[in-house]
Formats: sequence, C-alpha cells, structure tokens
Amino acid sequence: MAIGVIATITIRKGKNAEFEQLFTGLTEQVLANEPGAIFYALHRTKSDSQVYKVLEQYASQDALKAHGQTAYFLAASKKMGALVTAAPDIEVLEAV
Amino acid sequence: MAIGVIATITIRKGKNAEFEQLFTGLTEQVLANEPGAIFYALHRTKSDSQVYKVLEQYASQDALKAHGQTAYFLAASKKMGALVTAAPDIEVLEAV
Repeated sequence: MAIGVIATITIRKGKNAEFEQLFTGLTEQVLANEPGAIFYALHRTKSDSQVYKVLEQYASQDALKAHGQTAYFLAASKKMGALVTAAPDIEVLEAV
Repeated sequence: MAIGVIATITIRKGKNAEFEQLFTGLTEQVLANEPGAIFYALHRTKSDSQVYKVLEQYASQDALKAHGQTAYFLAASKKMGALVTAAPDIEVLEAV
C-alpha cells in the first residue's frame, strides 16, 4: 500500500535561500535514485514565509524506510539541522 | 510555477466507504483528463478515521483553476456535500 507524507519544516530567518538550494539538490537525488518515491516536492506555505511543506508519496512502507536511510538524505538532514528552528513535523498518511 | 494543494476533508461517520469510492472515481478522471494535474492522491490520516487529506500538485495556477471547473469535479463535489461534515479545508502552496 502506498504511503503519503506531509513534512512541515520551519526555517530560521535568513536561511531560506540556503535551505531551498539544499532541498532542491536532495529532491533531484531522491527522484533519480528511488523508484519507490512516487512524489517528492517542496512547497512554500502562503501563511508563513519560514514554513515549508514537503508533499511525498512512496510505493510502500519499505520505500519510505529506504528513503530515510540513503546517504544523501542523511547528509542533507545533517546540513538542515543548522537551518531549521526545530525538528520537522512528519505526518504519515495511508493512500486510499 | 507549480502549485501544491493539501485538501483536508472530514467525512460523516458511516460514509467512509461511499466517500472513498466516489473519490477514487474522481481521481481516475482527473489523472486521465488533466495533463496539468501532476499529482492527485487521496490519503487516510492516522489520527482520525473520519479525516482524509488529498495531496495535489498542478503545473500552474491555470491548471488548478481548470481542475475546479471540470464537469466531473463539480458533479463529485455536489455528491460529496452529503458525505462531509463541513466544507473541505484547502491549503494552497507554491512549489519551490
């Protein structure tokens, strides 16, 4: 069964451009290397310029788990640690 | 610029199966007829069995507008009116 994710990420003021560049590179790697990543796309929210939402869908729970264990995801997450105000909020959904 | 949408829909108790069937048919029509609908997928939330989230992305604001004006979307929306507890909550996002 496919799995959806909404990841809400709040970025420190002045770090938006650095975050967007980092996440764009991550997205390219996800889409190039993970056939189980059906959708993976960063978005700006309209309510708060510091808050982003990543809309994601994976073919399976295993594909989601594999995503979180890739070297490029772990490296990007480590770099993002200096850009965010807190740990991302991750909502996991079940595709109908 | 691509546009993301998170539509949160709360369904009346006992109406889940009818809603899921209706929305599955709508999704098939969206994906078959709207090249500007990049992603369109219904999900169940884990926190509340009555609450669903649709993750959507469109190629442009025009594609989102066109989606809302299709005959099948308007027909499905009308039928959904009897299944929901309130109007859906629609969050529009700007793809990075």
